[in-house]
Amino acid sequence: MITGWRHPARLVVLAFLAATAAGTALLTLPVAAESGRSTGLVTALFTTVSGITGAGLAVVGTGSHWSLFGEVVLLALFQVGGFGIMTVASVLALLISNRLGLAMQLTVKTETNTLDLGHVRRVVAGVVSISLTIEAVAAAVLALRFWLGYGHGAGRAVYEGVFHSVSAFNSVGLALYPDNLVRFATDPWICLPIVAVAVIGGLGFPVMFELLRRHRRRWSLHTRITVPVYLGLMAFGTLAVLLVEWGRPGTLGPHGVGDKLLVGLFHGTMPSTAGFNTVDVAQLQPATLLVNNVLMFIGGGSAGTTGGIKVTTFALLAFVMLAEVRAEPSVHVMGRRLSADVQRQAVTVALFGVGIVVTATLVLLTTTSFSLDVVLFETTSAFGGVGMSTGITPNLPMTGQLLLVVLMFIGRVGPITLASALALRERRRRYELPEERPLVG
Amino acid sequence: MITGWRHPARLVVLAFLAATAAGTALLTLPVAAESGRSTGLVTALFTTVSGITGAGLAVVGTGSHWSLFGEVVLLALFQVGGFGIMTVASVLALLISNRLGLAMQLTVKTETNTLDLGHVRRVVAGVVSISLTIEAVAAAVLALRFWLGYGHGAGRAVYEGVFHSVSAFNSVGLALYPDNLVRFATDPWICLPIVAVAVIGGLGFPVMFELLRRHRRRWSLHTRITVPVYLGLMAFGTLAVLLVEWGRPGTLGPHGVGDKLLVGLFHGTMPSTAGFNTVDVAQLQPATLLVNNVLMFIGGGSAGTTGGIKVTTFALLAFVMLAEVRAEPSVHVMGRRLSADVQRQAVTVALFGVGIVVTATLVLLTTTSFSLDVVLFETTSAFGGVGMSTGITPNLPMTGQLLLVVLMFIGRVGPITLASALALRERRRRYELPEERPLVG
Ligand SMILES: [K+]
Ligand SMILES: [K+]
Repeated sequence: MITGWRHPARLVVLAFLAATAAGTALLTLPVAAESGRSTGLVTALFTTVSGITGAGLAVVGTGSHWSLFGEVVLLALFQVGGFGIMTVASVLALLISNRLGLAMQLTVKTETNTLDLGHVRRVVAGVVSISLTIEAVAAAVLALRFWLGYGHGAGRAVYEGVFHSVSAFNSVGLALYPDNLVRFATDPWICLPIVAVAVIGGLGFPVMFELLRRHRRRWSLHTRITVPVYLGLMAFGTLAVLLVEWGRPGTLGPHGVGDKLLVGLFHGTMPSTAGFNTVDVAQLQPATLLVNNVLMFIGGGSAGTTGGIKVTTFALLAFVMLAEVRAEPSVHVMGRRLSADVQRQAVTVALFGVGIVVTATLVLLTTTSFSLDVVLFETTSAFGGVGMSTGITPNLPMTGQLLLVVLMFIGRVGPITLASALALRERRRRYELPEERPLVG
Repeated sequence: MITGWRHPARLVVLAFLAATAAGTALLTLPVAAESGRSTGLVTALFTTVSGITGAGLAVVGTGSHWSLFGEVVLLALFQVGGFGIMTVASVLALLISNRLGLAMQLTVKTETNTLDLGHVRRVVAGVVSISLTIEAVAAAVLALRFWLGYGHGAGRAVYEGVFHSVSAFNSVGLALYPDNLVRFATDPWICLPIVAVAVIGGLGFPVMFELLRRHRRRWSLHTRITVPVYLGLMAFGTLAVLLVEWGRPGTLGPHGVGDKLLVGLFHGTMPSTAGFNTVDVAQLQPATLLVNNVLMFIGGGSAGTTGGIKVTTFALLAFVMLAEVRAEPSVHVMGRRLSADVQRQAVTVALFGVGIVVTATLVLLTTTSFSLDVVLFETTSAFGGVGMSTGITPNLPMTGQLLLVVLMFIGRVGPITLASALALRERRRRYELPEERPLVG
C-alpha cells in the first residue's frame, strides 16, 4: 500500500531537505549578512526554503539584509531548486508516461520499474541547457537596460540582470530592491523580459521541451491542455487587475493608459508565476486579492518552477465537470479519453491543496490577530510558491513563520510527490463490491 | 443533451418561483407591516426568498418590521418551502434510485420515466406527518417554557413556540427577537429543543424516514454515510467554537463552563442547520468564521431543509481521495462500490458550489467596501441557506441584496437540481476514444 511513497517520490523530499540544511548553514554565517553578524536560525531557514522552493516570501530585505556572499548563496539556491524540481518532476513524469504507455507494466511492481539512465541524462541536459539559455538571454537584456538606462556600472548591471533573470525563470520573485520591482513599474525594458522569462519558466519542462522540439501536431495532451489554460488564466488575471484597479489611487490610478496596461499585464501574470510586484500588494483591492488567490492556488505547469496544484489539475476538474454536464459517459478531451484514475488523482491533489491551505489559514488566524483577507493571501501565496505578500510575513510570530516554511515546502513538493506517488504504484484491490449510490447535492 | 434539465428538475425551479411571487405580493401589502405602510419590493422579495429557501438572512427585523399577519405569511413560507423542497427532492431521489436499481432502465429516455403516483403520495404523506409531528413536539416544549419560564400569555407562548419550532425544523433560523436568540443563550429549555429539531430537520427526509422505519441493518448507504458525517461535522464545529472562543470577552468569555458548553453546542450545530445564533456573530473570531464557512458550504443531508452542497457530496469527495491514497482501483465505501458516475457528480456539484460562492464574493467585493472576512461569510451563509450574518446584509446596496436573493435561491435548489439533472438523463456518447494522461500536480 505504501510502496508508491518509497522509491522515486522520496527522492524529491530528501534532496530538498539536504539542500535546505546546507543553505541554512551558509546563510547563518556572519559573512552572509550585510551587518557582518550571524543571522538567526529561523530567518536563515525561512530564506533558504523560500529561495529553494521558489516561494519568494521574505522576512528580511533581500538587498538590504544579505551581503553579496549571501545573495550569491540565494542565487545558487534559486538555481539548484529550479534544476532539482524540474529534473525530478520530469523524470517522475517519464516514469508515469512510460508506465501508462506500456499496459503490460501495470502488473509489475513499482520497485522493478527501472529508470533508463539515458532518459535521465537527457532530461538533466535538457533542463540545464534550456534554463541557462533563457536565463542568459533575459539577463543580457536586463543588464543592458540597467547599464544604459540606469547608469549602473557594467559589472553591477550584469549581476543585477543575472539575479533577476534567475529569480524570474525559477519563479522565485525575490528582487534586490526594497520595493521589489515597483520602481520599474512603467519600464517595459525591465517588466517585459521579466514577464517573458517567468511565463516560460512556469510552463514546466515537459511543455517547454515539446514546444521547442516537436511539431505542433505531435504535442501531447498535457501540452495541449497546459498552454491554453495557462495563458487563459493569465489573461483572466490581467483583465481582473485592469477592471478592478483601473482608477484606484494606490495602484493603477496614477498611471497613464499605456502604463496601466503594462502594470496590469505584470500583475496578471505574476500570481501564476514568479510573484514579483510592481505595485504595493497591500494596496490592491480585496477583489483583486481574491482573484490572485485563485491563480496562486492553481499555479503553473506540471514539472515547472511554480507551486500550487498546477494548471492541468485545475483543467482536469473543469473537464470532468463539463463532461458530466454534457452527459458524456467518459471524459473526453481533445480527442483523448481521461481514465477514471487520473480524474481521481486530480480530485485528490486539489482537495489536498484546499485542506492544506484552509488548515494553515486556520492556524494563523488563531495564533495572530490578522484578518482573513491578508492571512489567506499569505498562505495561498506560500502554498502556490508565489511570494507576493501584503506585508504580514515579517510580523508573524516565529511559529507562524515556521508554519509558512512548512507550507512553502509542501506547496512545492506536495502536489508533485502526491500525484506521482498515486500514479506510480500497484493498485491493490482487484475484486469489485456491489454498486450503490448515495444522493449527491 | 438538455433533456435532463427539462422534466422533473424544472418543477423545483418553477414551484419556487411561483411561491416566491405569491409571498412577495403578500408581504408588500400594508397589512403585513407593523407600520401599516407598504413594504418596498426588494425587501419583500428578499424576505420571501429568505423564508421560502430557509436561508434566513434578514434585511429588516422579523419581529419589529412585520405585523402578526406578515409573520404568519412568513411562517407559511417556511413551511411551504420546507414541505416543497423535501417532497420534490425525495421524489427525485426515488427516481434516481429506481433508475439505478433497474439497469434496464438506463437505456430508456428520461421523459418516459413515469412517476408512480403511489410513491409520490407516500412521500408527501411521510414528509407532512414527520414534519408536523416533530414541529408539534418541539413547539410544545418551547411554548411551555415561554409560558412558565418567561411569563408570556398562553396564546403568545404557543405562537412563539410554533414560530421558532417551524423556523428551526425548516432550517430557516429567523427569530422574533431583535437579538435572534442571544437572550436565551444560557437557557437549555429553549436551546436544546431548537438544536434537536434543527438537527433532525437538516438530516433530510430519506434519512429521517429510514431512521424511523427501517432496521439498522437495512439502512441504505446514503443513510450510513449521512448520519456519522453530519454528526461528525457538528462535533468538529462545536469543538472549534469551544477552543477558539472559550475566553473571548465578546462571545463565550463571560459565561460559566456549563453555559460555554451549551453555547458551543448551539454554535457548533447551527452552521450545518438552521443558523440561529445565541452570541453576536460579528464578535466571533475570524478562525471561527472560517470553520463556520466550511460547515455552511457543506450544509446538511440531501433532500433536507438546508442549502449547501450536502454532507454526502462532501463525504464522497473524501472517499474518492481516501481510495486514491490507498491505491484502490475502485472507490469502496462500507462494502459498496461508488460508480465513476456518482463520483463525477459529486465533483461537479462541489465545483459548482465553489464557483458560485467565489463569483458572488468577487461581485460583492467589487461593488462594496466590505472586507473578504465578512463578505465571504455572508455569501457562504446565503449559499448554504444558513442565514447567520455578521450584520452587513441590511447595509448592502440594492444590487448586493438582489445578488444574495439569487444566491439563496441557487444555494437551495441548485445542488439538488444539478445533481438530479445529472443523474436522470441519457448518457450521450457511447464510443470510447484512446486514453491519454496529462500530468497532475
Ligand atoms: K515565487
Ligand atoms: K437558515
